[in-house]
Amino acid sequence: MARTAGSHSDITGPRVREAALRLFAQGGYAAVSMRAIAAEVGVQAGALYNYTPDKQSLLFDLMESHMTELLATVADDPTQPADARLDGFVGFHIRFHHARPDAVFIAYMELRNLTEDNFARVEALRRVYEDGLEQILRDGVAAGVFKVGDTKIATLAIIAMLTGVNTWFRAGGRLSLEEVTAQYRDMVRRAVT
Amino acid sequence: MARTAGSHSDITGPRVREAALRLFAQGGYAAVSMRAIAAEVGVQAGALYNYTPDKQSLLFDLMESHMTELLATVADDPTQPADARLDGFVGFHIRFHHARPDAVFIAYMELRNLTEDNFARVEALRRVYEDGLEQILRDGVAAGVFKVGDTKIATLAIIAMLTGVNTWFRAGGRLSLEEVTAQYRDMVRRAVT
Repeated sequence: MARTAGSHSDITGPRVREAALRLFAQGGYAAVSMRAIAAEVGVQAGALYNYTPDKQSLLFDLMESHMTELLATVADDPTQPADARLDGFVGFHIRFHHARPDAVFIAYMELRNLTEDNFARVEALRRVYEDGLEQILRDGVAAGVFKVGDTKIATLAIIAMLTGVNTWFRAGGRLSLEEVTAQYRDMVRRAVT
Repeated sequence: MARTAGSHSDITGPRVREAALRLFAQGGYAAVSMRAIAAEVGVQAGALYNYTPDKQSLLFDLMESHMTELLATVADDPTQPADARLDGFVGFHIRFHHARPDAVFIAYMELRNLTEDNFARVEALRRVYEDGLEQILRDGVAAGVFKVGDTKIATLAIIAMLTGVNTWFRAGGRLSLEEVTAQYRDMVRRAVT
């Protein structure tokens, strides 16, 4: 479908965010201008400011929406056994992050470019996510199912391990994502049992 | 000590590399010009080209020297029991990476900015490092000490887990690096036993 350059109705949030996400992931936040984002969307630079006040807001918007989507999607049922909940978390984390490589890359890499306030807000959301996993570990320890030295460190270790899948997994390789997930479930379970 | 701007004897490799490392880590490779690197070193832009032909060579140099230093420093004694070798690897990896946050950040983040040839060379070095850990796991499996579903995946999972320490550990926090390392040794051992 042809796009009318500069048409305001055309500048939807999702299209601006997609363009910014792609360009930030390719070149890095600092190297990408608002003009370049506008060109990627197919509008004049001035029109972009109808949607977002500046590049910092756009970066924060991307990182905040990534985290709020993550928090809205993760599901945990505290009435279930802790080991089943942990299996669920592992599968969810790998699947969710695998589907959003650019957003994940930016969420880790561009923290340095957030203002102090924006950094604190993103970190607070990240902590909520981490707390969810830590609660599973704590409940498992309380139930005598898990044995964990320090649940906070175990939480950070598990999340780093799982997010790492994004750096090497490619569809069509030796193993499917499901097979990879099964291996991680096994290792994570054993690490805390 | 005062620096003489433009003095050739002043442009040592280490100083150029340090400046480039710092600036790339702060702003990202794409946003940093050769002129900015020269200014950070305290020389004219032209003088920088006596040391390096271009920015790509500088980036590759940083990533290659990081990997060669890693490979030159990692020590493994195949005559020792696999679990002791694994403990040694965990401690080494955390210590080495903790001491070089900028180099580690760049080694992961700027892969996208390497030319295809340079990427292949850096990846080959990284694979040598991974193979070292995988050999420990294989030897442990062969000796009946470890039980690992897929040694390649376990290798990548362990490395991601350990490198993750760099994203959150700060000296002077709740736990010392030695205490953190002990927790990771315990989790890694259990994940493969």
